[in-house]
Amino acid sequence: MKVIAYMAQSLDGYIAGPNGELDWLEEIENPEGSDLGFAEFMAGVDALLMGRNTFEKVLSFGFWPYDKPVYVASNSLKGIPADLEGKAFLISGTLAEMLAVLADEKGVQSLYLDGGKLIQSALSQDLLNEMTVTTLPVILGQGISLFGHLEAKKKLQLKGSEVLLDQLVKTKYLLC
Amino acid sequence: MKVIAYMAQSLDGYIAGPNGELDWLEEIENPEGSDLGFAEFMAGVDALLMGRNTFEKVLSFGFWPYDKPVYVASNSLKGIPADLEGKAFLISGTLAEMLAVLADEKGVQSLYLDGGKLIQSALSQDLLNEMTVTTLPVILGQGISLFGHLEAKKKLQLKGSEVLLDQLVKTKYLLC
Repeated sequence: MKVIAYMAQSLDGYIAGPNGELDWLEEIENPEGSDLGFAEFMAGVDALLMGRNTFEKVLSFGFWPYDKPVYVASNSLKGIPADLEGKAFLISGTLAEMLAVLADEKGVQSLYLDGGKLIQSALSQDLLNEMTVTTLPVILGQGISLFGHLEAKKKLQLKGSEVLLDQLVKTKYLLC
Repeated sequence: MKVIAYMAQSLDGYIAGPNGELDWLEEIENPEGSDLGFAEFMAGVDALLMGRNTFEKVLSFGFWPYDKPVYVASNSLKGIPADLEGKAFLISGTLAEMLAVLADEKGVQSLYLDGGKLIQSALSQDLLNEMTVTTLPVILGQGISLFGHLEAKKKLQLKGSEVLLDQLVKTKYLLC
């Protein structure tokens, strides 16, 4: 199973402001409402695995943006909202255990891993295969770090880079 | 006077490892010894202003890589090594004072500002006009941050992005 992260960050490596602010993501002019390639990316994955924080952020959007099964990693959540039955599913265990369940029992071949903590765990345990990072033209100066603290450096292999909306740099890496 | 930063960072925003390590900068294959556009960039500036830490790092190279006047910002250094007479010059004061001296007394029109602390000061005081950041395909996980902590976010304007050596993403921004 291929495990893929797909994230946006500020030029200084934050995925959100210090209090989880995401307003800076909306400040890029996008007159034609481009999805920046998200639908194409989603078409290539079989399922998502996200953390509880990310799940609750998505719930706050007021609509459900995914057409693939979403597994919500949590040892504390008791259930999934009724209107998401068949769309979102609770899963628990260590990251390696959850990935094994998704690959072996659910037949997932290409997994979109979302959420800062899960991505950091996957990176530090060498469980991440691919990563697309879109860098916005802003320096937040403080906030929630995409990669956080790692004990050892991780080498990547650039697979492509493109400019979107004349302001974003979308870059794809493979983990070495 | 235009004040320009020209830096390399890891994907997670570090310019050096926790103990100043720069070895990761040398790990990209560069069989033809490309200077990644540095000579062209240098041709467009009139002078450099760097901090003491950066100056001492450059001295450790064992050769002097600049053909433009280098101003070394320091309130503690007593002098410049004799063999750099006419090449490097001490300057002191606040950043705004030093920039005023360079612009008004030295006639500098385009200044290459080097060093993490000076760049952070210039950013926070809105004294930086332009920035080229080359992102290497590595996540260091810890180290010396390029941008550090800022009280307020800074919006940038993307002016161009190119891939170098098939692995580096070199991106130019204007400050808004």
